[in-house]
Amino acid sequence: MAKTFRVGMIGYRFMGRAHSNAWRQAPKFFPLKANVELHTICGRNAANTQTARAQLGWQHATTDWREIVESPLIDIVDISVPPDLHAEIAIAAAKNGKHILCEKVFAVNVKQAEQMLAAATKAKVVHMVCHNYRRIPAIVLAKKIIAEGALGRIYHFRARYAQDRLADPEFPLDWRLQKDSSGGGVHYDINSHIIDLGRYLVGEFKQVLGLVNTFIPERPLAESLAKGQRKMGKVAVPDSAAFLGWMDNGVMANLEATRYALGRKNHIEIEINGSKGSIYFDFEDMNALKFYNGADPADRRGFREIQVTERDGIHPYVANWWPPGHGLGYEHTFVHTIADFVNACAEGKSVQPTFEDGLKNQQVLAAVEESSAKGKWAKV
Amino acid sequence: MAKTFRVGMIGYRFMGRAHSNAWRQAPKFFPLKANVELHTICGRNAANTQTARAQLGWQHATTDWREIVESPLIDIVDISVPPDLHAEIAIAAAKNGKHILCEKVFAVNVKQAEQMLAAATKAKVVHMVCHNYRRIPAIVLAKKIIAEGALGRIYHFRARYAQDRLADPEFPLDWRLQKDSSGGGVHYDINSHIIDLGRYLVGEFKQVLGLVNTFIPERPLAESLAKGQRKMGKVAVPDSAAFLGWMDNGVMANLEATRYALGRKNHIEIEINGSKGSIYFDFEDMNALKFYNGADPADRRGFREIQVTERDGIHPYVANWWPPGHGLGYEHTFVHTIADFVNACAEGKSVQPTFEDGLKNQQVLAAVEESSAKGKWAKV
Amino acid sequence: MAKTFRVGMIGYRFMGRAHSNAWRQAPKFFPLKANVELHTICGRNAANTQTARAQLGWQHATTDWREIVESPLIDIVDISVPPDLHAEIAIAAAKNGKHILCEKVFAVNVKQAEQMLAAATKAKVVHMVCHNYRRIPAIVLAKKIIAEGALGRIYHFRARYAQDRLADPEFPLDWRLQKDSSGGGVHYDINSHIIDLGRYLVGEFKQVLGLVNTFIPERPLAESLAKGQRKMGKVAVPDSAAFLGWMDNGVMANLEATRYALGRKNHIEIEINGSKGSIYFDFEDMNALKFYNGADPADRRGFREIQVTERDGIHPYVANWWPPGHGLGYEHTFVHTIADFVNACAEGKSVQPTFEDGLKNQQVLAAVEESSAKGKWAKV
Amino acid sequence: MAKTFRVGMIGYRFMGRAHSNAWRQAPKFFPLKANVELHTICGRNAANTQTARAQLGWQHATTDWREIVESPLIDIVDISVPPDLHAEIAIAAAKNGKHILCEKVFAVNVKQAEQMLAAATKAKVVHMVCHNYRRIPAIVLAKKIIAEGALGRIYHFRARYAQDRLADPEFPLDWRLQKDSSGGGVHYDINSHIIDLGRYLVGEFKQVLGLVNTFIPERPLAESLAKGQRKMGKVAVPDSAAFLGWMDNGVMANLEATRYALGRKNHIEIEINGSKGSIYFDFEDMNALKFYNGADPADRRGFREIQVTERDGIHPYVANWWPPGHGLGYEHTFVHTIADFVNACAEGKSVQPTFEDGLKNQQVLAAVEESSAKGKWAKV
Repeated sequence: MAKTFRVGMIGYRFMGRAHSNAWRQAPKFFPLKANVELHTICGRNAANTQTARAQLGWQHATTDWREIVESPLIDIVDISVPPDLHAEIAIAAAKNGKHILCEKVFAVNVKQAEQMLAAATKAKVVHMVCHNYRRIPAIVLAKKIIAEGALGRIYHFRARYAQDRLADPEFPLDWRLQKDSSGGGVHYDINSHIIDLGRYLVGEFKQVLGLVNTFIPERPLAESLAKGQRKMGKVAVPDSAAFLGWMDNGVMANLEATRYALGRKNHIEIEINGSKGSIYFDFEDMNALKFYNGADPADRRGFREIQVTERDGIHPYVANWWPPGHGLGYEHTFVHTIADFVNACAEGKSVQPTFEDGLKNQQVLAAVEESSAKGKWAKV
Repeated sequence: MAKTFRVGMIGYRFMGRAHSNAWRQAPKFFPLKANVELHTICGRNAANTQTARAQLGWQHATTDWREIVESPLIDIVDISVPPDLHAEIAIAAAKNGKHILCEKVFAVNVKQAEQMLAAATKAKVVHMVCHNYRRIPAIVLAKKIIAEGALGRIYHFRARYAQDRLADPEFPLDWRLQKDSSGGGVHYDINSHIIDLGRYLVGEFKQVLGLVNTFIPERPLAESLAKGQRKMGKVAVPDSAAFLGWMDNGVMANLEATRYALGRKNHIEIEINGSKGSIYFDFEDMNALKFYNGADPADRRGFREIQVTERDGIHPYVANWWPPGHGLGYEHTFVHTIADFVNACAEGKSVQPTFEDGLKNQQVLAAVEESSAKGKWAKV
Repeated sequence: MAKTFRVGMIGYRFMGRAHSNAWRQAPKFFPLKANVELHTICGRNAANTQTARAQLGWQHATTDWREIVESPLIDIVDISVPPDLHAEIAIAAAKNGKHILCEKVFAVNVKQAEQMLAAATKAKVVHMVCHNYRRIPAIVLAKKIIAEGALGRIYHFRARYAQDRLADPEFPLDWRLQKDSSGGGVHYDINSHIIDLGRYLVGEFKQVLGLVNTFIPERPLAESLAKGQRKMGKVAVPDSAAFLGWMDNGVMANLEATRYALGRKNHIEIEINGSKGSIYFDFEDMNALKFYNGADPADRRGFREIQVTERDGIHPYVANWWPPGHGLGYEHTFVHTIADFVNACAEGKSVQPTFEDGLKNQQVLAAVEESSAKGKWAKV
Repeated sequence: MAKTFRVGMIGYRFMGRAHSNAWRQAPKFFPLKANVELHTICGRNAANTQTARAQLGWQHATTDWREIVESPLIDIVDISVPPDLHAEIAIAAAKNGKHILCEKVFAVNVKQAEQMLAAATKAKVVHMVCHNYRRIPAIVLAKKIIAEGALGRIYHFRARYAQDRLADPEFPLDWRLQKDSSGGGVHYDINSHIIDLGRYLVGEFKQVLGLVNTFIPERPLAESLAKGQRKMGKVAVPDSAAFLGWMDNGVMANLEATRYALGRKNHIEIEINGSKGSIYFDFEDMNALKFYNGADPADRRGFREIQVTERDGIHPYVANWWPPGHGLGYEHTFVHTIADFVNACAEGKSVQPTFEDGLKNQQVLAAVEESSAKGKWAKV
């Protein structure tokens, strides 16, 4: 008989909803090596947590996350709260021997990240950071193409994560723009995603030349707006950031994260150029990968728009969903992440991206901040 | 207290999986006006049906569809089997007072379609055909733009449903290519979808000039291949079809359905041109709608690529899912369909597309066949 | 010493300007096998013709086309006037032993086309119809790919020529919408182009099922508007046309021509699907060809966007222009056409598309009209 | 009577061909305020220069550029040689009172640029740098949209100039990769273009954080290959470069130039994001401009793909060419440049981009080099 993992999830907002869906869907679409039970959900407000419990499909609710990490009933802790709370919860969960899935950005500073990795390693639990975009089928295909050497020597890694919600000065100062809760604003929130994709697809960052910036220094406080007022608060974190850098093997990097790109909704754009080929990806067209193969006959080279939706093992994950051309959406990336995480837990194996990846990501983020503060290169 | 509808679903393959997912997901993402219970699933093979029951989340399983349509426990019958079985099941379900959701193509001929509509009308049940593509957010937005008159007088309705799986002569002769089970092959299977979109967005077809065709007249029988043999069978239905025609208000129509378009995976392409604007849609980029507004300033007119993912009531359905740019996939169209169907059942209201739409669609399909057979115009 | 051809061109409007440019540019960019002299230009209005002569770079001007076709000084006659004048001029030119480049649509009926071909054949002159789109580098590459068999058995030829200028009911009734001068309105004017591309790339049309149409039956007369009046005239020719059909080797065809597609400016869209590959082209992105190669590895198939701008003989014509990615425009198609025509004249060889192509095109146009009139299939 | 300018052009390779074409074509397509005569062409090799003279349409040839700048017959000097020769020629031309059109990159260092500007200013001649991409109709439209304030406060200017020819290590070390002749390799050659577009569209660069790089430090010498040998030479200039920076009014800049992006042929990609709208342009689709208008109704916002080919004064320059949708190519940018230059000369007016623009561009290039060398911010 297959083992059953009981899951406790902390947080019920955007990520809580996305994770809950994935916990429900993974066993329906993937032949997992263990069963899962959506056991307990945790939030600060009792009434809201009860509503979320019913709506998102959990059995129990609590307002004390310690109940989850300490409960002998719970096998897996899913941390879907703002980043300032990750370290304390993750370390406690590790001490209690729970497998841990932790949302990104991993921590609010490098020190916390180190402690989290140390705790998880010491406890020998399975630990994973939820960089869900690694499991877009198109990205997995990109990884395969690169691993095969089909791009040759890589010259450029170029990425931009662009959204547009902050272009409006009236967009409120919520937790994502507060120093305490977010750690580093837009830089931590979304640059962390493309740094992760760079590390996954290409290699480690060695040194960086960064520029973190705040376009709009004051915004109405979210809490104030909720009360019908309009009290302003200072934006003490970056709302945009860019950096150049060097990666392993002399790859030149150029990354940029912004929420000031009107018309770009969730534009995660990646281009990798090598001596034999190039790859281009844009999340707003997430079911496609563009691949230029320098080995094609000279008169018919061009970026191919591959619909990454083929079955029979041709493309990853999609065989478990729908026929070719019947595309997937945003939420599927979480289902794939959780399916792989559950299987890793069942087998007691490591599953990427681990807390070590979380730490390395944090080191890049910090190096960019350091470079920006000093106005010169910083080592990662 | 909200009412609870117990659902019985017949069929567990491609459509059964898509519908089951939608029955599970609709209450999680939409505030339905009734609860739903995935009560009983039905299939011909007992063992497979049990497996499907467990996998797809149903409480009970049966191999006799009559148990479902006659059970006093069941409120809603979901017909997800091949089209030759629709009429008998739907008529029996109607007689037993069940609300009915019926997969497309609605029936295998016009007469059946008439009988199905008559039975459902007489029984005063809620009846709906599962033309799921009507509830792509981009298509609903197109409908709104047209309804506002923003296209002006419509000149052209142009649609193509193109896939590529039959380009391989070894692709087997399955039920979709058999006369008995499919009614009309590719013509019925996928032309019915774009006919439906034309009727939804533009108006009724008046007369048609059709060409139905079979490129490859013999294929290995699916059953034979399953036994490791390669017995050939005759393809007695169209595997491709095109037609020109006139719609309401003098709109010129050009529709084509094929599974011989290599590289086109689920390419449902629609273009509508009017005196004030144009619309373009391609399912392979399903989260976008292209709109050309002739009222824009002369120097900045162009097809806008609208990402139909805005919340706050701006775009339909998407507020219940994820933030802007975090796109939906194929399966969401079924969730929207079933959410609307459940609400209609709860309120005892009609919900489009009804069995009358199913009948009218069937009449267009038949007129195209008639025109093709006679080599001249046929009235719908 | 290379021979010098003296050219006489009849017409100075849109086509006259495009041809004059090509006559001037061809020797500058291509190593022609003969010199050319822009000798005499002819138009009906003496003053306008003089202005055109100076502006377009011709040595002499005349208002009598017979002077050109009968002059012993002239070697080549370029017919760039409306189609009703083609036959008389072309036949006279042939009788006088001139090589002939004739604008499309070739003639205003099949009989004229037959006479033109007969005259040119009898006179043993070089004769060419100016279907300039054949010499878009991307189209020549498509031809090469098809000729190599890289598409396998061809199933579908699909083309649309869409513009939008007639969507405005106030667009005047000019010669292109008059029966006498145009022969067949939009059907002749632009359907002839995509028929030609179908014949060039795929094969002959065998039978057709056509629908020619006039959306707006009355328009202000161009002459009347020029006088500040607004006298209406009847549109006695098609302003839109579509047809289905069969080509050689069982290729299913679907062609449509319209000037009612708002937002489509010069949208010549072609798709060809075969058992091994597909091709897509859109003139509005004329430097690119999209090619889907079914022989690519299964996980990386997709439409390649080939920039058809490579030098060193990789792509046709472009080596004579600019480096890769430095695209060509509309007018270059005429330069290529005239370069090839001059070389053919110098060598006394035939050059496609000949007057025989003109005749066959006319036969397809007529068959579509016949089919539309009778409401049933017509043989070509 | 209109004045006639006699032009002397120095250089006959790539730029010489492009300029010659523009000198020939400008009077044919634009109503210039003066006549032009292609008087004398100059090159180092007498035989080649004679061939070029004949092929490119010039009356006279010389091997001594001083003959041109000193000749009383010459009114305009067109400098189309490598950048190390610009200063001496331009200064001499200015001293002789010639109007000057100078290719980019303007000079090989800032000092030269200053001297060139000083000489031209003192001589009161018309002086222009040939940044031809400013006169792509789509770019002029972008300028207009920005000037109207339709983008609001600008946050981001982002540009990449990507080609792929150096991805092959065997591509030879030609003058563009030599320090003496090029000044600064790929950085000067193509970063100068996107710096110019940034200055034209958005504003001045204030400070930069740069990274200039040489991926492949040795290449076969072009001269050696020409002799059938393969002698290697050191690449002493950047073959790729990126920089971040601040522009006027707090605009964040990110520019990158490379010839290592396989599949990118002449990919000049620009994105500008403001508080009210965004603009995107890619030269490989040069007839289109993408514009996102934040003022559009909330449910129908999206990047519009504007075909910048409308006549009647709607779009710049195109009225003089062809109808809508009949796109232009690379060479037309030179025709527009020269048409405007001639008109400015005729009226004795300044025409952008002037030598002052050349100087400012050079200052940005130098600041990027300085920043890269020191590893910290540099002021422009």
